[in-house]
Amino acid sequence: MANEKIPYKIYLEESEMPQSWYNVRADMKNKPAPLLNPGTHQPMTAEELGGVFCADLVQQELDNDTAFIPIPEEIRSFYKMYRPSPLVRAYCLEEKLGTPAHIYYKFEGNNTSGSHKLNSAIAQAYYAKNQGLKGVTTETGAGQWGTALSMACAYLGLDCKVYMVKCSYEQKPFRREVMRTYGASVTPSPSDTTEVGRKILAEFPGTSGSLGCAISEAVEVAVTHPGYRYVLGSVLNQVLLHQSVIGLESKIAMDKYGVKPDIIIGCAGGGSNLGGLIAPFMGQKLRGEADYRIIAVEPASCPSFTRGKFAYDFCDTGSICPLAKMYTLGSSFIPSPDHAGGLRFHGMSTILSQLYHDGYMEATSVKQTDVFQAAETFARVEGILPAPESSHAILVAMQEALKCKETGEEKTILFGLTGTGYFDLVAYEKYHNGEMPNNIPTDEDIARSLAKLPKIG
Amino acid sequence: MANEKIPYKIYLEESEMPQSWYNVRADMKNKPAPLLNPGTHQPMTAEELGGVFCADLVQQELDNDTAFIPIPEEIRSFYKMYRPSPLVRAYCLEEKLGTPAHIYYKFEGNNTSGSHKLNSAIAQAYYAKNQGLKGVTTETGAGQWGTALSMACAYLGLDCKVYMVKCSYEQKPFRREVMRTYGASVTPSPSDTTEVGRKILAEFPGTSGSLGCAISEAVEVAVTHPGYRYVLGSVLNQVLLHQSVIGLESKIAMDKYGVKPDIIIGCAGGGSNLGGLIAPFMGQKLRGEADYRIIAVEPASCPSFTRGKFAYDFCDTGSICPLAKMYTLGSSFIPSPDHAGGLRFHGMSTILSQLYHDGYMEATSVKQTDVFQAAETFARVEGILPAPESSHAILVAMQEALKCKETGEEKTILFGLTGTGYFDLVAYEKYHNGEMPNNIPTDEDIARSLAKLPKIG
Repeated sequence: MANEKIPYKIYLEESEMPQSWYNVRADMKNKPAPLLNPGTHQPMTAEELGGVFCADLVQQELDNDTAFIPIPEEIRSFYKMYRPSPLVRAYCLEEKLGTPAHIYYKFEGNNTSGSHKLNSAIAQAYYAKNQGLKGVTTETGAGQWGTALSMACAYLGLDCKVYMVKCSYEQKPFRREVMRTYGASVTPSPSDTTEVGRKILAEFPGTSGSLGCAISEAVEVAVTHPGYRYVLGSVLNQVLLHQSVIGLESKIAMDKYGVKPDIIIGCAGGGSNLGGLIAPFMGQKLRGEADYRIIAVEPASCPSFTRGKFAYDFCDTGSICPLAKMYTLGSSFIPSPDHAGGLRFHGMSTILSQLYHDGYMEATSVKQTDVFQAAETFARVEGILPAPESSHAILVAMQEALKCKETGEEKTILFGLTGTGYFDLVAYEKYHNGEMPNNIPTDEDIARSLAKLPKIG
Repeated sequence: MANEKIPYKIYLEESEMPQSWYNVRADMKNKPAPLLNPGTHQPMTAEELGGVFCADLVQQELDNDTAFIPIPEEIRSFYKMYRPSPLVRAYCLEEKLGTPAHIYYKFEGNNTSGSHKLNSAIAQAYYAKNQGLKGVTTETGAGQWGTALSMACAYLGLDCKVYMVKCSYEQKPFRREVMRTYGASVTPSPSDTTEVGRKILAEFPGTSGSLGCAISEAVEVAVTHPGYRYVLGSVLNQVLLHQSVIGLESKIAMDKYGVKPDIIIGCAGGGSNLGGLIAPFMGQKLRGEADYRIIAVEPASCPSFTRGKFAYDFCDTGSICPLAKMYTLGSSFIPSPDHAGGLRFHGMSTILSQLYHDGYMEATSVKQTDVFQAAETFARVEGILPAPESSHAILVAMQEALKCKETGEEKTILFGLTGTGYFDLVAYEKYHNGEMPNNIPTDEDIARSLAKLPKIG
């Protein structure tokens, strides 16, 4: 068998690394719907977006036609610091499951930010620097995106202002300290450094903050400070573009060994990791060159694909950001506080939403206790402690591999292992202690937030 | 220049990975002094050691003659899960320093245990399994070694009992949860599960434990439970043997590109990482085939090489373990509680002690605030958050590179980056807040503990 020669880990040579990102929108017949101005309900113009985002990133955001966008030399140099990431053949997991399936995963956790977020952080920081800006602002919850951005900014000598949800700032100090190591200023949100922050503090003096509030503060600082722009780590088209490096590397590595995946699996929150992983494969599928089963896995506690509605909605809880057409649970939907890890966004990338709507991919939702059980099994045999988010993909990959065991099919499964669980050990502890609930929203919960969708057109 | 073709990261092919460990003792004219029975002061016999350690490991411990010891197939399979580790050309650090020096580092942190300790953990667990044992016991401080051992035991289906210093168990729960994920039983020490633990608890009811006490408990459990043996993560000859995989891979990678290091630098606590990194290079030096400057870097707060005495001493504070001839500060020496990170052992590997005594290597000690400053600089340009231990080597590598800047010499520097700082963020926080002292022992402190050295012969 040809596959007997496949090593445990496939690392591309530097010369084999992608020179361009792939923009899947170029091959979509039904393009993702445009962002709408929340006031006028008209498509956002480049000029409107340019007040908040860097010029080059606005262009990428709006570009539905260019298939390949060259990765600037400086970004490729940075990528060489931590890329190519390994494509791992999960021999040990296959053996543990006793499956004839061949399982591969693309591991994006081997960098200090601990996840794939760095792929877009360096791109966004680069274009900000290139535009002559002084710095960027962003929000962060547990700190994964903030860490990635602070690493990118430190490398380029760009100022980085992070608004971190106050309860995370206080209760999860570790990522905060990583950000400080990289020279970022980290402010607990809400703070007295912004008008919106002061207003919220006056109204709710004891509040522990929210992502929506942190976004508002970060955006306010970006638009009121000359030389600053706001950056975002997921959901946006530009982010999926940058993350295509994950899928491109995976495909080059698989092609090199003559391997073709039958099933491609990724976890889905805002969609940046899944969109990146599947990009070149989806491109083939859209062009009718190849077929793949593509599965998005989301938490049962935040099931936007599987139980949401395909409609225009606000991207933020504060209703100040543009409207996006996407699978959404309603911008007022908040997953149970018992939900561990990320994948908490009420909506989904407009690109992935359109592709799902058009039948190019499947979606499934899973319970978090099952996710942690899969994570533990995986850690023990593959030696990597996975992030809870990534473990959603692990669980479904294992389920598919076990189906192969029943049918005797030798399918090839590829999944995205986007990050490590080093900073998720409080959740692991809850799981070990049997204190992890599965709080799944009721139909009424979802209907309530969907009832508040904005009326468009 | 030939070096222009060197990639940022050199990964060996699986087929290029070492098939044998290298035992540097085989090339030493002056062999390391034998361990002595603490009661009789006679060399420990294989039989005596076999009561505590696995049979194959005892053989490795006592073997001063065999240069190459084959790595069993199963261990090589496990190594493929996380090895080869990358040899990184620190282009970004070189540019930041403006040095003509070429800097390389061997990065051992890309596995879930976060350090090089896994290289010996899997070997020790394998030999225990191979002997038909049920499990192993060990102690751990902050949890690095315990984590590595629990990963190895989970892979082999071996029981793993870890005694964790109580204050770490309570204050540093993250590694404890990683160990639990890997199925280890983790007991805060002192505990009521052992006679020695109960005795200490009765005498000091509120004690927060010590490494010496945890060792005593782990050893007691090993010798009183049929089918169990005790394992140790540093200091021992066998550990340096297993860690030689670090240096062997480094040398193969450098040879492949025609690079020869002028200076090799590693941090030194018990000596496992340094001994592993330098092994094949030291072998050449001992055989007169090549010359290298080899520098051990230790913390100023625990300076066994630079301010200790070359003498027989106990390896543990409880004076129950064998005596080793080594550079020691005295077994009653305890570094300041303000000392962050590891490298706290009062003694040093007998192999490295003999080599240092015979003039084959240099040693230097550095202050921890300088170490954290170097760590931060490194993290910002190389994108890896280093462990405080490894950052001792980073600091001296940077100092040597800056000397090259002054002299214009294009020296090649290799250092060991043994681990990540993900679990050391409390120390980073102290550093960021300007709350990190440099408590260096006085001459009187050291004289006091050296006065208690055992009288031998």
